[in-house]
Amino acid sequence: MPKRVDHDLRRRQIAEAVWRLASTNGLEDVTLRRVAAEAGVSMRLVQYYFGTRHDLLVSALDILNSVTAERAQEQIAGSGGDPTPRGVLRTVLVEMLPLDEHRRMRYLVHLAYFIRSRSDEALAATFRDTPPVLEETLAKLISWGKDTGAVDQAVDQKTEAELLLNSIDGLQTSVVLGQRTPDAAIALIDYQLDKLFCQDFASDSPGAPGTVDGRSSTREG
Amino acid sequence: MPKRVDHDLRRRQIAEAVWRLASTNGLEDVTLRRVAAEAGVSMRLVQYYFGTRHDLLVSALDILNSVTAERAQEQIAGSGGDPTPRGVLRTVLVEMLPLDEHRRMRYLVHLAYFIRSRSDEALAATFRDTPPVLEETLAKLISWGKDTGAVDQAVDQKTEAELLLNSIDGLQTSVVLGQRTPDAAIALIDYQLDKLFCQDFASDSPGAPGTVDGRSSTREG
Repeated sequence: MPKRVDHDLRRRQIAEAVWRLASTNGLEDVTLRRVAAEAGVSMRLVQYYFGTRHDLLVSALDILNSVTAERAQEQIAGSGGDPTPRGVLRTVLVEMLPLDEHRRMRYLVHLAYFIRSRSDEALAATFRDTPPVLEETLAKLISWGKDTGAVDQAVDQKTEAELLLNSIDGLQTSVVLGQRTPDAAIALIDYQLDKLFCQDFASDSPGAPGTVDGRSSTREG
Repeated sequence: MPKRVDHDLRRRQIAEAVWRLASTNGLEDVTLRRVAAEAGVSMRLVQYYFGTRHDLLVSALDILNSVTAERAQEQIAGSGGDPTPRGVLRTVLVEMLPLDEHRRMRYLVHLAYFIRSRSDEALAATFRDTPPVLEETLAKLISWGKDTGAVDQAVDQKTEAELLLNSIDGLQTSVVLGQRTPDAAIALIDYQLDKLFCQDFASDSPGAPGTVDGRSSTREG
């Protein structure tokens, strides 16, 4: 069905124009006219695919969230070999950091939408609904760790997933502000994983195991 | 020196006008003219106290940060009785949540400034410099906990302080978005403190002690 693929490509092309505009100057710049110009298509085509400006805003965020999920899946698949709960969890968390242009853009798009969501119920709903999905994914990975014995049975995966997500929020901000280097952000993720996972299973972390002054000790609080 | 006090009051009055405008519509609305109107003073007076618009923006953020520090001090003093490291740390962390109008306003002001800081080096510098102060305060409280034996000697207070601050970032966002209730946010703070502090010393938390299964955690809940 080549026709269908064309449609998806067109929608993606227009959504990318929305992301570029939103991440540069916020949502004020995202009008149907400007998006059409930025995407190099006619305004009629934008309206044909997305309807109103508001529908376009909501759809562009949905498409960005889908691309994010796909990228995370590719990262996991690409890590190859014998995936472990800790390795996969680390891949998902690191993928959420703004470490390249695409992820930095994604952070800024979310920020622009977040601000707008204060006065836009449909956007606010999209925001409210997104974290539960992410939280569930992280909680499942921690739960998988419990199944393999890598995570203590007493650990509450839901609460730990919430904490990891909260932590990523702060890391994103500090990396974008230049308060923290990407390496420092990744080190903090590894520190948290060290505390969550039993030491014997920590070997899939790239850092040297064992040497980490005090880190292992605070391990499971 | 009553003259001096008047000056401080005037500056505070004008800064409050900046906060109200910034938290409602972002920094675009913060012009010398609008701030003067909002504060009920003349434009000349605003210029007399703060100079240019840019100086006014930077000063208003500095004053807000000072007020925040004062409020945290008052909270700590007001907690009265026999302060413990855990109790004081909890007070400081909870004070950072947007749980009333003032703190919600503070969060929105910071958000407005944060966005602007992407293209304004002076504001970016203020942002970059603020967390180290907060981090140091938290690290000192954890270190005090080590002195009293409430926190394990092997704990790295600097890293734990970073993690607590990152976590607060995420909690602020989710409370403002309505994803998480204030009680749920406070419960997550207590969960983190339970992991950081040895169980025997957890009794200064207002929740019922005991019932530990590793997650006495969500206790407070």
